[in-house]
Amino acid sequence: MVKKGSVVNPWEVSGDINYEKLIKEFGIEPLKELPPVFNKELEYRRKIIFAHRDIQRVLLAIRDKKPFGMMTGLMPTGKCHIGHLMIMKQMVFFQKLGARVYIAVADIEAYNARGQSLEDSRKIAEDYILNYVAMGLDLNKCDLYFQSDRSKDAEKANAYYRLQNLLARYATFNEFKAVYGDISPGKMLSALLQAADMLHAQLPEFEGKPLPVIVPVGIDQDPHLRLARDISQKIKDFNFTQLSSIYTLFMPGLSGGKMSASIPTSYIAPIDTPKEVEMKIKKYAFSGGQATLEEHRAKGGNPDVDVSFQYLRMMFEEDDAKLAKIEADYRSGKLTTGELKQYLIDKINKFLAKHQEKREKAKGMVEKFIYKI
Amino acid sequence: MVKKGSVVNPWEVSGDINYEKLIKEFGIEPLKELPPVFNKELEYRRKIIFAHRDIQRVLLAIRDKKPFGMMTGLMPTGKCHIGHLMIMKQMVFFQKLGARVYIAVADIEAYNARGQSLEDSRKIAEDYILNYVAMGLDLNKCDLYFQSDRSKDAEKANAYYRLQNLLARYATFNEFKAVYGDISPGKMLSALLQAADMLHAQLPEFEGKPLPVIVPVGIDQDPHLRLARDISQKIKDFNFTQLSSIYTLFMPGLSGGKMSASIPTSYIAPIDTPKEVEMKIKKYAFSGGQATLEEHRAKGGNPDVDVSFQYLRMMFEEDDAKLAKIEADYRSGKLTTGELKQYLIDKINKFLAKHQEKREKAKGMVEKFIYKI
Repeated sequence: MVKKGSVVNPWEVSGDINYEKLIKEFGIEPLKELPPVFNKELEYRRKIIFAHRDIQRVLLAIRDKKPFGMMTGLMPTGKCHIGHLMIMKQMVFFQKLGARVYIAVADIEAYNARGQSLEDSRKIAEDYILNYVAMGLDLNKCDLYFQSDRSKDAEKANAYYRLQNLLARYATFNEFKAVYGDISPGKMLSALLQAADMLHAQLPEFEGKPLPVIVPVGIDQDPHLRLARDISQKIKDFNFTQLSSIYTLFMPGLSGGKMSASIPTSYIAPIDTPKEVEMKIKKYAFSGGQATLEEHRAKGGNPDVDVSFQYLRMMFEEDDAKLAKIEADYRSGKLTTGELKQYLIDKINKFLAKHQEKREKAKGMVEKFIYKI
Repeated sequence: MVKKGSVVNPWEVSGDINYEKLIKEFGIEPLKELPPVFNKELEYRRKIIFAHRDIQRVLLAIRDKKPFGMMTGLMPTGKCHIGHLMIMKQMVFFQKLGARVYIAVADIEAYNARGQSLEDSRKIAEDYILNYVAMGLDLNKCDLYFQSDRSKDAEKANAYYRLQNLLARYATFNEFKAVYGDISPGKMLSALLQAADMLHAQLPEFEGKPLPVIVPVGIDQDPHLRLARDISQKIKDFNFTQLSSIYTLFMPGLSGGKMSASIPTSYIAPIDTPKEVEMKIKKYAFSGGQATLEEHRAKGGNPDVDVSFQYLRMMFEEDDAKLAKIEADYRSGKLTTGELKQYLIDKINKFLAKHQEKREKAKGMVEKFIYKI
């Protein structure tokens, strides 16, 4: 739908050039044919989720109704933004497909790599988990845990941390450098704990057998996957099924670049008010339109770089036909930037009104959950 | 009792030169005045335990009948030998003084630093633990655990491994190099887990408060202590009392050098038969005597380098007066090497007869203990 060319936007990892580079450098593969149930999701049919490793194991498990897992983590630093909601949609999607869902709150990583206290991580995680529930995740059907406090079941707790320690034997310093750039003992332990996060569902104390596990991530997280995949095949004490992964494009920040919790003007938060949403989109959303209305009508806009259009494409306009019309109208100059922005504002605010209502309803339950696990 | 000079034997870390060097390089201190209860033990009055760090905290706790801990570990690689029994005597000594005793089976370290399976570690640990019980340790009054399987209590298990992960933030690569010489990710995790072993008694989930903990070790283990002491004071999430340690001389191997489980002719094992003990002492024990009987009578022997005499001094002759007479007679030439060796053989075999009887009695209980913890 979006024209792919050699121009690569900062948030467009799916452009031709980077795609080839990724495939060549990392050995990930573009997503090809998928079962119909996947293509009901806009992320798949629009290639927002654009690449994978070994997804076939998971597809077979789904087809044959065999057990499989989904693992993902949350880094409890900074505020939750709508970019995070894209990954949350995947949690819900795979949970509904029957995956055993594992979610790690990476509070050890936040402590070791970012210097954040465990208490602060717990507070921030609460906000994330409210969004999970609002997005449709069934908390009672998933294993959500803090890295620092794995389980109320001692056998499980011992097994998880044991795995972290045993995996260390098979890791090399070079692999850690690939994950983190510069390394420190704290970051090394965090990387090994992340590998244990991805692999431990297959231990006897958890699912009890090797099984496919899919890990949905942003492309920047792939070094973690490579580390875990590599050492999982070297350790012979277990018979780990190789991990699968899918890669999601970054949602662009309002002014372009990456959406980042540390730049308040770069994101929409799930708790933003309608007025805040309106202000942010109108003031900050980078436009692919022309400088004047006359020019715009004459030359048309460029939806490929227009952040408002990208938000519609990536998340807020489910209807392909409507999205195609918006794209064509914007490209021709029939649709103005102001009109496009207003359309998006209405879409986001409609979505957030429901989302915030669900968050409110979930509050007591999540608080109970988070301080009891 | 043993003349200290500038001649330093391979097992004699207490000689003048090394002593000063150790104090200067590592900052450990020679043991000075101790309460009478310590001097009832030959290890203290003969300076077999020759140095310490911060022992005063533990002495005060003993005097004031306040809680304190003792932590030590066993590396489950290779056979247990009589050199290990010296450390075991310390476990029993401190247990009787009222210490909360923690003993870690370092199976994670054996896996990561020596490539040994957890199953093999468990088998070897069984032999060690039989010796603990035979030496007088009350298993029911101590917390003996495997590093890979900390606790049947989930809160404790989580807390122990959490500590390992949090400590990582405060460690540096240089510290690991000091501990291990060359480092690998596996060795790093082992070193951090050892630091957690030494410190975790002070966590809320264990003793519940900062308390003095004494760690009896050989001098070669001091880098582990330095690492744990250093990071314990950097981590502000807990209020750790600084660790205390005492340093035991190495028991020399039969032919001199270090007693080593990997050299069968270097050690006496607790399960050796009387004939094996006799053969080993007669055949391998390095003698400080002269080449011929005439020469020995004329010049006398040198007990300082005589392994049989050192075994009597370090472990098998409790009676100071008898030991002094043996030393004087050997030095004068009145006592021959053959007579000295026979005296030691009788002492060891008398000790081992009782020891092996106690081992036999403990077998059912230890097997049950080890495969149920």
